[in-house]
Amino acid sequence: MSTIITLTTDFGHKGPFVAVMKGVILRHAPDTRIIDLTHDIHVHWPAEAGFWLSRAYRYFPAGTVHMAVVDPGVGTERNIIALEFDGHVFVAPDNGLLSALFENGGHLKAWRMSDEWHAAQDWPTPSHTFHGRDIFAPLAAAIADGRVRPADIGPAVHELIPSLLEEPIQEGRELRGCVVTIDHFGNLITNIDERQLADLRRPLIRVAGRQFNLQDTYGRVQPGDFLALINSFGVVEIARAEGSAADGLGLGRGAPVFVSDDY
Amino acid sequence: MSTIITLTTDFGHKGPFVAVMKGVILRHAPDTRIIDLTHDIHVHWPAEAGFWLSRAYRYFPAGTVHMAVVDPGVGTERNIIALEFDGHVFVAPDNGLLSALFENGGHLKAWRMSDEWHAAQDWPTPSHTFHGRDIFAPLAAAIADGRVRPADIGPAVHELIPSLLEEPIQEGRELRGCVVTIDHFGNLITNIDERQLADLRRPLIRVAGRQFNLQDTYGRVQPGDFLALINSFGVVEIARAEGSAADGLGLGRGAPVFVSDDY
Amino acid sequence: MSTIITLTTDFGHKGPFVAVMKGVILRHAPDTRIIDLTHDIHVHWPAEAGFWLSRAYRYFPAGTVHMAVVDPGVGTERNIIALEFDGHVFVAPDNGLLSALFENGGHLKAWRMSDEWHAAQDWPTPSHTFHGRDIFAPLAAAIADGRVRPADIGPAVHELIPSLLEEPIQEGRELRGCVVTIDHFGNLITNIDERQLADLRRPLIRVAGRQFNLQDTYGRVQPGDFLALINSFGVVEIARAEGSAADGLGLGRGAPVFVSDDY
Repeated sequence: MSTIITLTTDFGHKGPFVAVMKGVILRHAPDTRIIDLTHDIHVHWPAEAGFWLSRAYRYFPAGTVHMAVVDPGVGTERNIIALEFDGHVFVAPDNGLLSALFENGGHLKAWRMSDEWHAAQDWPTPSHTFHGRDIFAPLAAAIADGRVRPADIGPAVHELIPSLLEEPIQEGRELRGCVVTIDHFGNLITNIDERQLADLRRPLIRVAGRQFNLQDTYGRVQPGDFLALINSFGVVEIARAEGSAADGLGLGRGAPVFVSDDY
Repeated sequence: MSTIITLTTDFGHKGPFVAVMKGVILRHAPDTRIIDLTHDIHVHWPAEAGFWLSRAYRYFPAGTVHMAVVDPGVGTERNIIALEFDGHVFVAPDNGLLSALFENGGHLKAWRMSDEWHAAQDWPTPSHTFHGRDIFAPLAAAIADGRVRPADIGPAVHELIPSLLEEPIQEGRELRGCVVTIDHFGNLITNIDERQLADLRRPLIRVAGRQFNLQDTYGRVQPGDFLALINSFGVVEIARAEGSAADGLGLGRGAPVFVSDDY
Repeated sequence: MSTIITLTTDFGHKGPFVAVMKGVILRHAPDTRIIDLTHDIHVHWPAEAGFWLSRAYRYFPAGTVHMAVVDPGVGTERNIIALEFDGHVFVAPDNGLLSALFENGGHLKAWRMSDEWHAAQDWPTPSHTFHGRDIFAPLAAAIADGRVRPADIGPAVHELIPSLLEEPIQEGRELRGCVVTIDHFGNLITNIDERQLADLRRPLIRVAGRQFNLQDTYGRVQPGDFLALINSFGVVEIARAEGSAADGLGLGRGAPVFVSDDY
């Protein structure tokens, strides 16, 4: 069974940017399976990549290498990190992207690539603007192939740059979170985890002047009605049956969402 | 040779929704080849998925498993179907999606997943909102892997929910069909099959107040001119040479298209 | 190690058009790896496909077969070409797409498919409008599989149709190029190669009434500021730090870009 590499970027689908990373991976590790996690991360916003990666990685086989390149600092003095977490390996710039993995704790086993180690590889001189192709792809391939372990690439790192995505905070009787991203259906996906609702007897979700109790699935309300639910990734989501909650409520990324106890 | 699974959804490309289904498939059947058929089915419209699947499946090798998840009723009481057709296997919700396969007849060999069979699998408890990941993906993987046959999953089904896509109907001297979908070029793709034109000596296509005889390919008219043709999937299509017929005619999904004999 | 086939088209992501080409490839050559180079080439503009292919192919392993279908003349009298270049194989319509490979010279080793050879294959009768599926896919598969060599398909070709993309030209003290394409970030990517700047002591880029010297990466200017750089594919690019240069400057494909010496 060949090792899987997943790719998460903000590159979109125009041009050959994702494809050449795959070409480089396959030159270095021909038997790798490559799966696109998503390339539609909000441009220059590592927080969304971390949010999705931390909630999606566990659906892949143990040993999968997750390569994430949302990298506005490419070519400047930011570190490149490889880390091990829950039997998976992650490679990304150290810009807050990977810290979402540790929201609920967990021992940090991370290393940053040293200039010396990089110089010792037989990789071409990297460009200043496309480290996805020139550094992350050969690194992920070498790890997937078993030739390199994360600990080989340089010194251990004891702290990651924190995520730019704020954790939900308690404000009086309400917990205030926010919309992290909007999916293709127009569902508003928040950073409020179901664990944060564990002590509430009857959670009440408040957003844009409307209030909802939780439903279990979309089909529980009439077409056109709004609803709130815990989605399949374990976070609060505002949806509209057979419609777009984002369009219907006029809300977007960053909009505040409140939870209290309706008991 | 490894078995192929094709994926057809209305999930779009934002977020890791398609990717985690692939992760689950590869955990259950590591040697599977996965091909995206399309993820841009019109949201919540199983009819388009059935239209494309019924016309595209035959280009894949016999034995391919086609998994289609356009599933507005997820988490409510709709059935999950596996069926065998023309040497291929199809899995989908029973919401009209698969009935397009039987437009021209054909013996129905279909089974619906029973709660008992589902409960006997060692799959995690499904979420209420993402059966693509939690049920369809492990089911398609088990079939692709040869561990499960469609007939294993539950009782035989003798009738499918009919498609929401109406068949073209005869109105006086005209056959009235409609635009099913618009491709990336702006071509208007209809539900009028070439077989329905077999008895016409000189088919005349009428749409939005314009009339066309059939051309064989786009380059037969001047750039900017509209034309009608039988497309590569055997249905009537309205196109514009080096342009978008949808934009030029101001038409969209559902627009009526008429065919008569110009003889 | 299985052979790779890359796919470059203007088909976008709607409908099963790309997928059925993959199905056909896998029926003819089951062990092939298929990588999407891009399907978002500007519709009916082979020049962009050639631009990207000529700059991206080298990141794939030698022996890769690159299949490009941007083919407004499908079904009319245009030739289908297979050629060998730098250890890679390319198949495409002869409409200017592949001539970008020879911008810096190179010996042309190209052949055009003869009707006789085509008729001798056991492929289904091709449609008039989808040669990607009916001709290019089985051809690329047969070459990837080693059953067919480019020279087998018909007579040698000694000249390709030239690209519709003009080379940059010298106008007085300035070199005038243009914007070829805009990436997902809104970066303006030009046809001015770094080699054309080799004799300049201090290149000055002029576009839309603004002037820039070259930076090495995006992070060198303040967020919101525009900049020019040599990008990771070796051409002049106009960018905006943490923003979209295309939106900010109101420029698109074809916009003129000038380079002179600021010394």
